Amino acid sequence: MSTPLKSSFLLSYLCTLPPALLSREILMADSEALPSLAGDPVAVEALLRAVFGVVVDEAIQKGTSVSQKVCEWKEPEELKQLLDLELRSQGESQEQILERCRAVIRYSVKTGHPRFFNQLFSGLDPHALAGRIITESLNTSQYTYEIAPVFVLMEEEVLRKLRALVGWSSGDGIFCPGGSISNMYAVNLARYQRYPDCKQRGLRTLPPLALFTSKECHYSIQKGAAFLGLGTDSVRVVKADERGKMVPEDLERQIGMAEAEGAVPFLVSATSGTTVLGAFDPLEAIADVCQRHGLWLHVDAAWGGSVLLSQTHRHLLDGIQRADSVAWNPHKLLAAGLQCSALLLQDTSNLLKRCHGSQASYLFQQDKFYDVALDTGDKVVQCGRRVDCLKLWLMWKAQGDQGLERRIDQAFVLARYLVEEMKKREGFELVMEPEFVNVCFWFVPLTLRGKQESPDYHERLSK
Amino acid sequence: MSTPLKSSFLLSYLCTLPPALLSREILMADSEALPSLAGDPVAVEALLRAVFGVVVDEAIQKGTSVSQKVCEWKEPEELKQLLDLELRSQGESQEQILERCRAVIRYSVKTGHPRFFNQLFSGLDPHALAGRIITESLNTSQYTYEIAPVFVLMEEEVLRKLRALVGWSSGDGIFCPGGSISNMYAVNLARYQRYPDCKQRGLRTLPPLALFTSKECHYSIQKGAAFLGLGTDSVRVVKADERGKMVPEDLERQIGMAEAEGAVPFLVSATSGTTVLGAFDPLEAIADVCQRHGLWLHVDAAWGGSVLLSQTHRHLLDGIQRADSVAWNPHKLLAAGLQCSALLLQDTSNLLKRCHGSQASYLFQQDKFYDVALDTGDKVVQCGRRVDCLKLWLMWKAQGDQGLERRIDQAFVLARYLVEEMKKREGFELVMEPEFVNVCFWFVPLTLRGKQESPDYHERLSK
Repeated sequence: MSTPLKSSFLLSYLCTLPPALLSREILMADSEALPSLAGDPVAVEALLRAVFGVVVDEAIQKGTSVSQKVCEWKEPEELKQLLDLELRSQGESQEQILERCRAVIRYSVKTGHPRFFNQLFSGLDPHALAGRIITESLNTSQYTYEIAPVFVLMEEEVLRKLRALVGWSSGDGIFCPGGSISNMYAVNLARYQRYPDCKQRGLRTLPPLALFTSKECHYSIQKGAAFLGLGTDSVRVVKADERGKMVPEDLERQIGMAEAEGAVPFLVSATSGTTVLGAFDPLEAIADVCQRHGLWLHVDAAWGGSVLLSQTHRHLLDGIQRADSVAWNPHKLLAAGLQCSALLLQDTSNLLKRCHGSQASYLFQQDKFYDVALDTGDKVVQCGRRVDCLKLWLMWKAQGDQGLERRIDQAFVLARYLVEEMKKREGFELVMEPEFVNVCFWFVPLTLRGKQESPDYHERLSK
Repeated sequence: MSTPLKSSFLLSYLCTLPPALLSREILMADSEALPSLAGDPVAVEALLRAVFGVVVDEAIQKGTSVSQKVCEWKEPEELKQLLDLELRSQGESQEQILERCRAVIRYSVKTGHPRFFNQLFSGLDPHALAGRIITESLNTSQYTYEIAPVFVLMEEEVLRKLRALVGWSSGDGIFCPGGSISNMYAVNLARYQRYPDCKQRGLRTLPPLALFTSKECHYSIQKGAAFLGLGTDSVRVVKADERGKMVPEDLERQIGMAEAEGAVPFLVSATSGTTVLGAFDPLEAIADVCQRHGLWLHVDAAWGGSVLLSQTHRHLLDGIQRADSVAWNPHKLLAAGLQCSALLLQDTSNLLKRCHGSQASYLFQQDKFYDVALDTGDKVVQCGRRVDCLKLWLMWKAQGDQGLERRIDQAFVLARYLVEEMKKREGFELVMEPEFVNVCFWFVPLTLRGKQESPDYHERLSK
């Protein structure tokens, strides 16, 4: 083609023009004649009000009431019939749609119910939910200041606050789609910092790399090593003590072993709040080891990070300020709502953008009329990215540090309550006294009670 | 410790028990005494109703009205002042919180506004928004049938429908957090299929790999190659013709060159709907090349995939049924709302789970009382995963195939309308006649009009 195509300067419908400009210059004259996607505003509002009514009645009121069930359990085949999931050629009436909304809620697990005890999140925070509803109604992507001015600034402030709780007065960070991806980011940053060439040339030219984590770590470390091309063999599993905490002496030993085998250690992933036992790795001792060997210290505090808000319990994470990176999921203990996972960095050298950036010219033009450092989109491996900060920010504004601290402290109280109740009852055997909110126990059936000395006791208990 | 810890059989508060069971057995007696996270139900409802009122007034009504601005633009420093973002020790009153909700909406870009023309999404679909609000109110994670019975089945059905539109009667798939990650999944699956050892042993032991995509492809292919440890050098850039379509002859040539250099070609990523020009790569011809060389064909149809719904225009994707994987983002052209990105696979050998699975025993127990094949969580590299199917399903139920088809066809009509309007006006120079909804043009300022023959015309136009 004769015209040299530079996408950064080319004007493209749906692509690059500030919206107001395009509409004013081109579409103003006849745009009234264009049908709106949203259709009739009155009908739109009526539908949304009706759906919101269903949400309040079914998901909020009944969904959080102890007099209602946590879940109306159905077997898969029966549930398929009840839901009539098939997508057909013809659309349905508003009445049918509302009935579908009711059914979806009816047969879903109520995770905000006081008796919901599944994986690492529960409860319903009304302010966080309010933030989520606003996020959805605004439906934007967090890549540039231009398209998400409020949320670019808000994310910066929320990350600053989380970093301050870690103990850092400066640094960087980003919200990721979940803790597993936050952990992967940390691994990718650590290897890029050590081998910047890796971004262009890949792993083939590098020596074998080794990273270290305890046997109680989250499975995302293994998954991440595979996904990032390192392979699960690169993950060296360090011993944990009887409380599930990484043993620093074994870490030191494993590092020596890896080096002796010709591998290059580059990262230790410690865990603050392991998934099953709720253990906190000894960060000071691990940081000492990392310092001695020049290793990146990542702390997977997805579960336990929120304990930093509690003056009473934050000692569990002593030493976290010595980490290079921290993954912290406020969607877990703080109940901000899925997904809300922050990767925090001590780095101030723009490592995140250097490691992940590709300078796509159609999106991250360098000649904008504001400071393009605000365009955070090139810090991530995604392109479009959800707004995950508003729900946390709004909840924090409503609760203050103090309110959130009370909530954390209360979770510890509840765990203690459960332990005491178990001790009062026959048939429960605590695995250990909890130091966090995970309470691990065996339920001992009648036939096994009092038979702890029997040789097949543990086998039969497991079954 | 004396008790052998098998997390799969261990009962752990917050971790492994079906919720109803735990509550019935342990907490029933005294749980009334436990404070609820949600607090006073009446206050919760009042807050949510008030926030929803703000959302309807500010984000829905004003936000989609042509008589209102798309964005109340503020410079970053001024906006920081206006928003008062700082998170403090004390919480705030409900009145203050509502004012904050109004401010967040006021200063945000209204992406549902009829005059919003930014990156590849716009408009407000009320049914999709209804689905998003329900998703947020239920706040669950899509890893097991146990915790997300409705959404596990619904995701399966929505993926089945999308696959049927691609032309597959069987296969696999998963919703990912955005198209970039869907593309990465495809690359990871292709290399795992060829070198299953890679998951464990990493890339070091493999020959250099090569993947192929056109110069008009999305930047996520480069980002993905870096993240996955392949390095950006592994991406071979194939020529595009004057309309932005990959040139199959150059693909063939590049494959030969890579092989001559000792690299192993393993994947071609074709694009259906490029980001800037809206070009559709010639899939039949590319599939022929892939077949000849035994390469995985991935189609990045994040932007253009929704055209499959249109009988009139779906020929643009002829040949897509020959792909191994397809990335398709209904959050773009179908306006389902961020994020809604499907990775579709023709594979029926459980490749997705074999490639990404880690069989974490605390979550994916194999002795459940339902078919554990429904536990999709081990198909992904994430752990917690948002529900991204409900918004699309509900919109589809309301619109039917027919309604969605009309919407796609209408987008083509709108693009044609814009082109015709430009032709009537001075100062607009079309780059090419569009075949999709991207309309690329130059705005020619007064000083440059009629000077097309001037030697520095294009340079000055770009500026």
